[in-house]
Amino acid sequence: MKLAENKLLIAALGGVNEIGKNMYLIQYDQDIVVIDCGSKFPDESLPGIDLIVPDITYLLENRDKVRALIVTHGHEDHIGGIPYLLKQLNVPVYGTQLTIGLIKIKLKEHGLLRNAELQVINVDSTVHVGAIQASFFATSHSIPDCVGIFFQTPEGNVVHTGDFKFDMSPVSGPYPDLHRMADIGKQGVKVLLSESTNAERPGFTPSERSVGGHILDAFARAEQQVFISTFASNVNRVQQIIDAAMETNRKLVLLGRSMVNVVSVAKDLGYLKLPDDLLIDAKMTEQYPPEKIAILCTGSQGEPMAALSRLASSRHPHIEILPGDTVIIAAGAIPGNERNLAHVIDNLYVLGANVIYGSGSSAGMHVSGHGSQEELKLMLTLMKPEYLIPVHGEFRMLYQHRLLAESVGIPNENVFIVRNGETVQIEAGTALLGPKIPAGNSLVDGLGIGDIGNIVLRDRRHLSSDGMLIIVTTLSKNQRQMLVAPEVISRGFVYVRDSEALMNEIHENVKSIMDNLTESEMSQWNVIKQTLKDNIGRLIYSQTKRRPMILPIIIEI
Amino acid sequence: MKLAENKLLIAALGGVNEIGKNMYLIQYDQDIVVIDCGSKFPDESLPGIDLIVPDITYLLENRDKVRALIVTHGHEDHIGGIPYLLKQLNVPVYGTQLTIGLIKIKLKEHGLLRNAELQVINVDSTVHVGAIQASFFATSHSIPDCVGIFFQTPEGNVVHTGDFKFDMSPVSGPYPDLHRMADIGKQGVKVLLSESTNAERPGFTPSERSVGGHILDAFARAEQQVFISTFASNVNRVQQIIDAAMETNRKLVLLGRSMVNVVSVAKDLGYLKLPDDLLIDAKMTEQYPPEKIAILCTGSQGEPMAALSRLASSRHPHIEILPGDTVIIAAGAIPGNERNLAHVIDNLYVLGANVIYGSGSSAGMHVSGHGSQEELKLMLTLMKPEYLIPVHGEFRMLYQHRLLAESVGIPNENVFIVRNGETVQIEAGTALLGPKIPAGNSLVDGLGIGDIGNIVLRDRRHLSSDGMLIIVTTLSKNQRQMLVAPEVISRGFVYVRDSEALMNEIHENVKSIMDNLTESEMSQWNVIKQTLKDNIGRLIYSQTKRRPMILPIIIEI
Repeated sequence: MKLAENKLLIAALGGVNEIGKNMYLIQYDQDIVVIDCGSKFPDESLPGIDLIVPDITYLLENRDKVRALIVTHGHEDHIGGIPYLLKQLNVPVYGTQLTIGLIKIKLKEHGLLRNAELQVINVDSTVHVGAIQASFFATSHSIPDCVGIFFQTPEGNVVHTGDFKFDMSPVSGPYPDLHRMADIGKQGVKVLLSESTNAERPGFTPSERSVGGHILDAFARAEQQVFISTFASNVNRVQQIIDAAMETNRKLVLLGRSMVNVVSVAKDLGYLKLPDDLLIDAKMTEQYPPEKIAILCTGSQGEPMAALSRLASSRHPHIEILPGDTVIIAAGAIPGNERNLAHVIDNLYVLGANVIYGSGSSAGMHVSGHGSQEELKLMLTLMKPEYLIPVHGEFRMLYQHRLLAESVGIPNENVFIVRNGETVQIEAGTALLGPKIPAGNSLVDGLGIGDIGNIVLRDRRHLSSDGMLIIVTTLSKNQRQMLVAPEVISRGFVYVRDSEALMNEIHENVKSIMDNLTESEMSQWNVIKQTLKDNIGRLIYSQTKRRPMILPIIIEI
Repeated sequence: MKLAENKLLIAALGGVNEIGKNMYLIQYDQDIVVIDCGSKFPDESLPGIDLIVPDITYLLENRDKVRALIVTHGHEDHIGGIPYLLKQLNVPVYGTQLTIGLIKIKLKEHGLLRNAELQVINVDSTVHVGAIQASFFATSHSIPDCVGIFFQTPEGNVVHTGDFKFDMSPVSGPYPDLHRMADIGKQGVKVLLSESTNAERPGFTPSERSVGGHILDAFARAEQQVFISTFASNVNRVQQIIDAAMETNRKLVLLGRSMVNVVSVAKDLGYLKLPDDLLIDAKMTEQYPPEKIAILCTGSQGEPMAALSRLASSRHPHIEILPGDTVIIAAGAIPGNERNLAHVIDNLYVLGANVIYGSGSSAGMHVSGHGSQEELKLMLTLMKPEYLIPVHGEFRMLYQHRLLAESVGIPNENVFIVRNGETVQIEAGTALLGPKIPAGNSLVDGLGIGDIGNIVLRDRRHLSSDGMLIIVTTLSKNQRQMLVAPEVISRGFVYVRDSEALMNEIHENVKSIMDNLTESEMSQWNVIKQTLKDNIGRLIYSQTKRRPMILPIIIEI
């Protein structure tokens, strides 16, 4: 796809009509700047898939124009796709110090660190890409060092907010830079891309600081070991947990790979104040009394392989949860994870732990990192954009964001709710929907990227719901007749020992079907296979109401 | 398992440490009374399973002692397993008029109605089973005609609450019978089995009546068609929806099989006031202006095959949701259904509908049918039981229920948190944990009940995550050598057209593995199969990081 000259084009390659795999682009003339490159986890409709990243066909088709990837912050839904992008397109990556630090961990794991071009920026930096100039403003979110991006182009100014809330009392700076935002608004914003995660939630999201008091109280009240689980990347919450451990004279154990990695990077870069003698190894806990121990671990979403799940089912080699211990889940369940998390909480109770969970007033162990309705309106009022593209949200969130925009005076027709791959073009001051560009899900399964097609997924779903039945028939090359009795093998269908009668009947049926085929039918393998599929399928359905995948295999000798 | 004489035994066959498939039993001497027989839906860890019902091995082993099934109310998690029970054990079923009406629908579908012995009871009835005498008290819940059960036995009185809230202003009677409950409490309750669904929720659940005003407001404000989805069995809410349609002069369309069934039974039995001229057929809607139409449908959980999902994705043959229509989701999402429901809401917004959802104060379209903490305390205070067995809840709910019991003066050691199959025995006035009886999940898949074992499920999970690879080798009977090239077939693994190189390599490897086997190895099929599995598995994992199921098949000619 070619773009006409002197036009400004804006598109999402991921992140609208979904939560996850954020990736946006702005293009002016011969230059493309990419914003973020995230990943998301598949739901149960994509069996066996490890990760979903954006389809970057458009970028590959225009690889000579792609000048920069600017990353707003270090969360997985903004950086998780970077290794898969850089494998195919080595573009310079710009981000703040912590963001680049977290990207480095990721690139190292993929063996891509040596060849990557990583550029640390800060709120005073400017990035020039052809006629596009990008500068940055500080925002607050559930990870430090977040920025919004201010693009100046010949067709007008474009702002991408990144993820934000207006936390005016952040645990450790920086404050959201209201003055700079007001200044950008004064300069005039043609198009605002603003995040929509909490557009359904009335009011103002509480400050992260409000969680700290609850954590400290729980640590102080606990008479034995304290376990606390949160997102590793929520460095401000981790700081408050560190502070609570210090205040209550507890040594701190870190469990879970991402917790260890993030704490290490954040400490090295100065984002965490963590005295050297606070941390101890899991093996050392025996040397301290239980009231002197706190364990900070991953697994706040109930992920079955993470540290908290292992602890809850007594699968950790060195640490055991004992009756009377306190366990704090300092996170909300992301939709889809409720059951896993509830299961972990149940197991913790079975172990006799005192479990504190939930974001309600009774627990107060979590606040969102995303701004609620009043904060989205505050951003809109500061930026006063002519056009809004709500991003970072499922459709109903984008829709609610449009209603909020209307309420602060942005006309309905100036709000573009786009799908991934739909473009908004600005020409001569006016924004219109432009041509579509390729966009979608690229599925990562093992080492393969994007090689899992619909047929493979359909087969996996079929196999998982009713299993399969393999019928091997052996034909002689010339006489077109069966040489030996057919083999019938099933997996995931019925337990053969309990279903001898059915399996025998299938066997007999295969033989009689084969015997009844005419010579001409026997010479057409497709006919043999289809006849077996149809007849055996009907037999099985009538007896079991199941539809296993039936796979006839013909061997010709 | 034999029970000693003159003992009272209480057990859950389903319903504790889970939400769903409630089934309890009380046994005295040679008589067993069963309470409820529910079903639940499987989660994604049980691929292909249609339904889960209780394992009734214990009842089958003691079939001559099972005298009665008493059903507290007509919800699926209390009646859904009845057809599967009656197929194996024809026991008389006791329930109130509406409960029996709903059971009849179910038995009819299974062709079991003719032989079933169904007994309608009411709050004045008494059922005698040997030395056990059962009577009933009215409770309120999200379906009418609910009862709790009062058992009098020589070893003391036992109360089972059924599901309840204390709705003192129910939409249509009956009121929860506080006086009868107080009277039972005065007579002395040895053991209380009380439901625990909302044991985590502080306060008092609002009255069902509070929803009616919100529904009427939304109906009155709507300028076009109104769609509203709720649980079919919530007859009181359905009544309020009927009332709102009448008040706003709208004709009512019913969509969804369970909605049509339940409304028909509830109307016939006098539980719904529904004028004959209110209902119209879906095909007739064209004859009315949109502001004269209301559609009441199933699918409030986002179930992909239910009416609301079909409407949201424009798959209904007669009715279309148009921009400006109002859609009300008058239900909360049951944990595990959030994603499906969010997806439906997104689709409704895409169609341009005004969607009203959520139980928060802003929408108010749903209240729970289960009592919150203060109501559980009220029940405990009315019944003053010596022992409590919290039922109907996951472990953390049962645990919170115990804390509530402690707060009203029941000693911790008098609360039995049991697992399905654990028994509580009362002898000489004292309750103790008794022997375990068989209990667990019986899986319904197509026509089979309980014939899906762990191996089948493990295979399904394996097949769904990485697919499979079949290797067919053909050996001559005497020379122990391959007759033709091996066949390699994959499903759900990789898309073969994109993976020719890999498939060729697998082919070559199979051949060379077979060529390198010694004559003695060739005579042991297990060795051939294991060698192929190991070697090809390693090859595939090194190249793809996937582990498909590898299925070697040997054909001997």
